[in-house]
Order: sequence, then structure tokens, then C-alpha cells
Amino acid sequence: MFLRNCWYVAAFAAEVAAQPVARTVCGKAVVLFRTGGTVAALEDRCIHRGMPLSQGGEVDGDILRCPYHGLEFDRAGMCRKIPGQDYVPSGARIAAFPLVERNGLLWIWTGDPARADPATIPEHHYHNDPRWEWRPVFLEIECDWSLLNDNLLDLTHLGFVHKKTIGGDPAAHAGAEMKVEHRDGRVHVTRWLANTEPPPFYRLGHAFKGKIDRWQEIEFRPGLVRIWTGGTDAGTGAYEGKREGGVQFMGFHGVTPRTAHSCYYHFTQARNFRLGETELDERIHQAAFATLLEDKAVLEGQQARMLENPGRGFIDIRADAGGLQGRRLVEQCVADEARTGAAAA
Amino acid sequence: MFLRNCWYVAAFAAEVAAQPVARTVCGKAVVLFRTGGTVAALEDRCIHRGMPLSQGGEVDGDILRCPYHGLEFDRAGMCRKIPGQDYVPSGARIAAFPLVERNGLLWIWTGDPARADPATIPEHHYHNDPRWEWRPVFLEIECDWSLLNDNLLDLTHLGFVHKKTIGGDPAAHAGAEMKVEHRDGRVHVTRWLANTEPPPFYRLGHAFKGKIDRWQEIEFRPGLVRIWTGGTDAGTGAYEGKREGGVQFMGFHGVTPRTAHSCYYHFTQARNFRLGETELDERIHQAAFATLLEDKAVLEGQQARMLENPGRGFIDIRADAGGLQGRRLVEQCVADEARTGAAAA
Amino acid sequence: MFLRNCWYVAAFAAEVAAQPVARTVCGKAVVLFRTGGTVAALEDRCIHRGMPLSQGGEVDGDILRCPYHGLEFDRAGMCRKIPGQDYVPSGARIAAFPLVERNGLLWIWTGDPARADPATIPEHHYHNDPRWEWRPVFLEIECDWSLLNDNLLDLTHLGFVHKKTIGGDPAAHAGAEMKVEHRDGRVHVTRWLANTEPPPFYRLGHAFKGKIDRWQEIEFRPGLVRIWTGGTDAGTGAYEGKREGGVQFMGFHGVTPRTAHSCYYHFTQARNFRLGETELDERIHQAAFATLLEDKAVLEGQQARMLENPGRGFIDIRADAGGLQGRRLVEQCVADEARTGAAAA
Repeated sequence: MFLRNCWYVAAFAAEVAAQPVARTVCGKAVVLFRTGGTVAALEDRCIHRGMPLSQGGEVDGDILRCPYHGLEFDRAGMCRKIPGQDYVPSGARIAAFPLVERNGLLWIWTGDPARADPATIPEHHYHNDPRWEWRPVFLEIECDWSLLNDNLLDLTHLGFVHKKTIGGDPAAHAGAEMKVEHRDGRVHVTRWLANTEPPPFYRLGHAFKGKIDRWQEIEFRPGLVRIWTGGTDAGTGAYEGKREGGVQFMGFHGVTPRTAHSCYYHFTQARNFRLGETELDERIHQAAFATLLEDKAVLEGQQARMLENPGRGFIDIRADAGGLQGRRLVEQCVADEARTGAAAA
Repeated sequence: MFLRNCWYVAAFAAEVAAQPVARTVCGKAVVLFRTGGTVAALEDRCIHRGMPLSQGGEVDGDILRCPYHGLEFDRAGMCRKIPGQDYVPSGARIAAFPLVERNGLLWIWTGDPARADPATIPEHHYHNDPRWEWRPVFLEIECDWSLLNDNLLDLTHLGFVHKKTIGGDPAAHAGAEMKVEHRDGRVHVTRWLANTEPPPFYRLGHAFKGKIDRWQEIEFRPGLVRIWTGGTDAGTGAYEGKREGGVQFMGFHGVTPRTAHSCYYHFTQARNFRLGETELDERIHQAAFATLLEDKAVLEGQQARMLENPGRGFIDIRADAGGLQGRRLVEQCVADEARTGAAAA
Repeated sequence: MFLRNCWYVAAFAAEVAAQPVARTVCGKAVVLFRTGGTVAALEDRCIHRGMPLSQGGEVDGDILRCPYHGLEFDRAGMCRKIPGQDYVPSGARIAAFPLVERNGLLWIWTGDPARADPATIPEHHYHNDPRWEWRPVFLEIECDWSLLNDNLLDLTHLGFVHKKTIGGDPAAHAGAEMKVEHRDGRVHVTRWLANTEPPPFYRLGHAFKGKIDRWQEIEFRPGLVRIWTGGTDAGTGAYEGKREGGVQFMGFHGVTPRTAHSCYYHFTQARNFRLGETELDERIHQAAFATLLEDKAVLEGQQARMLENPGRGFIDIRADAGGLQGRRLVEQCVADEARTGAAAA
């Protein structure tokens, strides 16, 4: 059911400090923790009596201690100590998952460990680049991850769902020129909204003279959608590559399957203008958060209605072109995995 | 499972104004809305991606717009516009349900549309008659609608469940003379409580000299129970038709199946005395509301216990005569419907 | 599934006064009530229409009256009156369960009534002895009762789960000398923690000079775990029987299966020192309550994780010796019951 041979965002790196953190990824309960600066992910179930290690477990030196009877596990899931006895049986271990810290993110792999190549983790240098500023948002959404992927691959919903926040003119969104491409194992959706009103969100960042040329460049791969958006004064060359002098946002949308009908959303939006302005930063953050909550409400309503109507079909529209390509890409990956096998961790 | 070829109360007319309203009737999620003064009911699921139209959908002119991607539907459920494209495929429609506004109520039909004859909707002129005053109460009760029907057809529970509100003497209720008739497709239960104490609720309406002659005339058909109750000073002729000079209430109890184990209760109680007295009106309303909450608690407790004991039987008592006739009537209607068919809307 | 031929604590006697009380024991909903000083337990489901008798039912003389239509039942479950009719059909009865009041507790039997011998109810004289003081605590825990039994039979968890309350040194707990015996139909676990730090809880009761000799004597039978704990100044003879001059607690842990995955916990802890000191009593009570809530959190986390992983095994450790004996004892009782039969009440 799940696409397992994939790197997913498990958490923001800053979330995992002294205390262990619980997540569920592709149906597996995991505990994330950090010992001596290095992060690790284990199955969140003590081998002794099933206690969730995340629920009050203590990190002590290089081990994670079970909060119930004190069994100690290292980063590889090996039990290193059982209180009250001198020996540790060889079967006393729990599953460990590859976990990589990069760009302020923790990436997890729950598929075949032999295929977990850190080199294939998407690089997102914006999180480490002093020319960009960003803040993290974490949400759990009660919907199949594919609904969130669809949402991000079809931005015509901005004019309806987000009309009070980042929206803009619905007709401009829907009528925008659009190109969908599938290349390099990713789906690319590019949209141009020429000569359109700047939305309230954009006005926070720049004093536009009037209408703007707006772009949306979406890049999808399983687990991550990136959206580069921005706008400059209309006719000043945005579509020819001249993108300075307006607003630019690099959106990072980590989409991680939690269960069949829930997912995690790790979101950041980096901007490269008016850096260090705390009040502006807060306003942009609040607007982004409000926007994400609008999406969450829509997605959860949609999911509930779909669960009430199993097996009933839908119609596709022109705006679905990106989402359909995205689903096709995921289906191919799942089919590949079924053929080659993904060892259950 | 549901009796579908039946008019049910979907909402009070005043509930459906500028914003669409969500209900579930006989297991079907519907959205109620009003365009240009005319009400309509559609399936609450956009044909595009399943979004509930009621969740933020906008009425604009004569259409209802989906809150997610802006598809527009008319009162018949036909899609009239898909943003971003010029054509609308012929399959782009959602189910519409007959919905009739009458007497301040919206009546819905989820069965075979060909049998939806508005002439068979129960007339309730009290809602439009200046000689009567009423206020609406709407409750959702977590029980099979048949339990609420039973409740209304056997008023001996008043002395127990409602002893602090409209109750009166339990022995007088239980011992009351009772007649049960099945005629004209309805069940009629008539009860006379002669020479009994007026309950607190009645005292609000009239200064009785002492004991009263009290009547309860219940009329049941699927979807609606009406209860005409009242009392006059004992021995002054209530049972010979002389019903002025005391209190009279015309109770409207719309009982609408929601799911197999939940129902809607649309209640009004019209009175024809001391009209225009705001404080009295408020006191009667508060007492009625408290009474309905007592019923809700009982019915939900009963339903929970029944669900825990599937298949276990009960015993019938004398007071069940009306309720048993009511269940028989519903069973006949369901059997008729199974024979003649009710097109799924 | 349940061990039914067993006396379980249904409630503290003081809980059942003028109002009936609802409990669920071994999956059966029961109503506990008291008429004329004598307690009784009936199935909590009126034979008429399934109403829970506990939900507003009234005790009147020697009957319990149904809150819906007023049917009256005696302590044996026989219906004695049906309002509105003169006769009561012979089938109008509901199941009654043996219920015995002893030592401030109500003990219930939901198995074969012929085997319900009150002589086998555990005597707990501490509740009636003026030399001991105790206060009741009642909790519902969302876990299989066997997890709570395990918890009480392996006190090495004190150093981890309760490190802030009654804990003490984890290594001392885990390394304590331990003896496990199965005799007289009970499991006995004895542990000696010699020359160890007194935990905060103990310091409330006595000004120890330094380290203490601590003992834990656990006695398990299905439905009841008793734990006699205490400590005296190290080397003053606790292990030779000289237990005065420190603190002593006699813990009563009634463990009653509620459903397959929930149980009741009726807890008291009698002490024999500093009697009548209200403030100390309150401090000990608060500490005990905090301790039980720590257990509840652990047990519910453990249960949730176990339900997510049906059929997956665990490893046993040295500290499980008592818990494993306890499970074996319960299994034997269940097997005996399957062979001899436990009439469903």
C-alpha cells in the first residue's frame, strides 16, 4: 500500500533534541532521538513488553532507555542492558531505520535498507543559505498523502480556498497558461499569471506599482513538493528571467504518509527579501499558517466524504494535469517496488 | 434499511439563508441552499474530487460554487462551469433531491423522484397562523429514529423521564384511558387524564382553579408525529370539545432518519394563549428544551445498550400499543417500497 | 475470554448509596444499588426496552425503578410492577449477580452462581481495623487487566516509572534479591532491598537515620493483588521480623476486568503510623494518586502499541518471574472454568 523505498521527512532537525519524539511513517511507529549529536530512528516498541520508547524514554549517553523497565537500546536498535540481569539475549533488538540529518530536516527510509542511498535525498540549500530566511510549520492532516500531493500540484484552488490569504483572482489562476512535464523522475508544473493583482500575502513583501507578472514553478517527487513562486511589476521581465525587485518564495512541502488516511506536512517557505525584519517575518508566518489550516480543513472534509463513498468515481478537469502526472509517478514507483521488493524493516 | 419514499423534514426554512447547510438524510449527505429565494438540495459531494459543497461553498446568483476548485452547480445538480476550461462534460452532475418549502419547514425526498408528490406533504398551518405562536428547536439524537417514534407514541414516560418538567402524576399517566387506531395511513393514540394535577409547564400558561381534565391526541405517520395536548379546569367540558380557557399546545415533532443509529429532531410547539408575551414565551421555550434534552439522554442511553446486546429481545407492555402500531405502519411502508422500488437518488 | 468464576471488586461500598451506580464487569453492564442497607447487582438493561437502569433509576423501598417507563425490579431482578397494567408476565426479569459487601468493598461474581461461595472472598481486615488508616482510589484503565497484574507483580518498574514519587534507586530495585512462589492458589513474590535510600514517599512517614532495609511482599490471586511494603533503618532487623519503628503500608489492588481492553483499579493503601494526621494523610494520598496516574499512562501506552501489533511476540526477562507465574495461574483458572463450565449469568 505504501511506497516505502523513498526518503520522507520524519521531522525538523530542531524538534529532536533532549527528548525523544514519536512519529508514525508509512504505518510504522518510530521514535526519533539524538545521542551525542547523531540522530537515530527505532521502532517505537520495546521488545520486552511493547512499551512505546517515546513515551518518557530517556536518552543517556549513547542509549535510549525504556521508560517502563529500563531496558537500554543503542542507535542500531541493539539492546545493551537489561536491569537486574547480566546477560542480554541475542534476540533483544528492535528495528532501526536509516535516518539522515540534512538542511535542518530529518529524512527517514522505511523500505529496503540496502537501497537507502543518502545521495538521493533532495538537497534544499535554502535552509542553510544566509541569503534566505525561513520558519518551520508542522501539521498532521487526516487525509491520504495523495490528496495533499494533488492539492499542491493544482494551484487553481488558491483563488477559492485561499481567497482571503494568498489567493488572488480566481479567473487569473484558472485561466493561467500551464505546462506539465514529466522528466528526471519528477513532475514539473509551470504556470504564468501575467498582469494580475498581487495577493495580500505578496503586498507584505513589496510595494508593487500595480499589477504583477506572477509565476508558479512546481516540482514534485514522492515525499517532496517544492514550489517556487513570486511576482514582479508587470512587464518588467519576470518571464525572461529577471526576477529581482519583487517577492520570491521557495516553498518546501514535505509530504509524508503516516497511515492510509493521514499524513504529515512539514512546510517551510524561504524568502530572499527584507531579511531580519522580525515583524514582517511574523506576519508572513501567520499568513502561511492560516493558509495551511485552510488546506487542512478542505483536505479533511474531502477525505471524510471519500471514505463515506468507497469506490465511487470522479471526473477530471484541465487543472488536474499536474496531479494526474504526480499520481502516475507514484504508481510507477509502487509498481517498481512491488517488482524488486522492499524489505520490511 | 431506510424508508426512502417519504417526505422528511430536512431543516427549518429559516436555517437556510445565505450559507449552505449540511444534513445527512437516510444515510445521504446533502447540502441545502437557497438561490433567489428558492431552496434546493444536492448531494454534498463535488463530482470533481469529492469536496463537501457545504463546507464553505458559496451561493452566487443561481449557482452553488464548490469551495475547493470553484466548479459551479445549479439547483438541478448540473455543473454549469468548470474554471479554466470552456466545456463542461455531460457527466458533470450531482444528484439533486426534491425539496419543498412549506409552513416554515424544508421537506426532502430521497426516494424515487417520480413518486415525490408535494401534495402529500403534511400541512401544518399553525406555523402560518397569527393565532398561534411557536419557536423552533433542532436536535440531533444518536438513536435509530424508531426509538424516537416509540418515545412520542407512548407518553407514559412523562411521569418518569419528565417528572421535573412537563411530567405530572406517573400513576395518572399510566392509568389513563387510551385508544389506539390505525386509519388513513396514520396511527392515532388518544389519551384522557381526567381530574389530574396540572404539571408545572401548564401552570405557566394558565391559573387553574385546581385539578384539570387533560388530553393527549397523538397522530403518527413516518417522518412526523403531531401531539395536540392541553387541559382545562376539571369538569368544564374538555372531553366534550370545550377546550378554551385553559392551555393548548400543538406539538410538531419532525423525526428524520439520519443514519442507522442517529436521527434529527425538528420540534415546534405552537400555543394559542397569551400571545406576544416574551417572558412567558422564553419560559415555555426553556422548559420544552429541557424536556427534549431529557428525552435525548434517555434515547441515547437506550440505543447504546441495545447496540451492546444485538439480537436480544424485549417484552411488550400495555403502554406500547401505540408504538407497536407505529412500527407496523413503518414496516408496511418499507415492504411496499421494496416491492415497488425506490430509485436511489 | 474472561475468567468469570471469580470474585472481583465491583465498587467501594461507600460509592453505592442513594443513587444506583453503573459498572461493566467482564463485559457485562451491571447496575449496583442499595435498598434498605442491602446491596444488589442487576444487569443494567431494562427488560422492556433496554434502558440502562443506572441512568437516573430510582431506588424506592426495596425496588429499583426504571427511569424510562417506571418498571420496578427487586434485588433478585424480578419485575414487581409495570405501570398501567395489573399483571406482570413471568418472563419480566433481568439477571441478578451475587454481590457481597465486606471490608468496605463490594465483591461481584459474574460466573456460575452455584459456585459463588462468599467464604472464598479475600478477607481484608485492615479496612476495619482502627490501628490502620486508608483512603480509596478508583481508576478505570484502558488496558487488559493482565497488564495491570504484570505491573503489580514486577516492582522493578518503580525505579523508572515512579522515579519522582515512590521510586528509589533503579539499580537497587533491579538488583534486589527476589523469591517467587506459587502456593495455596496464589503467587507470592518477595523482594528485599537492603541498605537502600528511602524514597520520598517513605520520608513522609518517618525520619530515617540514613539508608533503610526495605521489603516488598506481593500476594497475587485473580482479582486482587496485595502488596505489603515498608522499611526500617538499615540493619535494625526488618528481615528478621522486627518491622516497627519505620513505615509500613498494606496495599490493596483490586483488579477487575471491564472489557477485553479495559479494567477497573480499586486501590487502598493502609498505614499503621501517625494515624489521624490529616495533612500527612493528604500528602500520602496525593503521592499515591500521582503514582497510579503514572502507571495508568504507561499501561495505556503499552496497550495501544500492543493492539497495533497483534500477534507479535516479546522477550522475557528475569524480573518477569512473578508476572509469568501470575499469568500461568490465571490460565489454569480459565482452563478449569472451560472444563467445568461457568453459567452465563
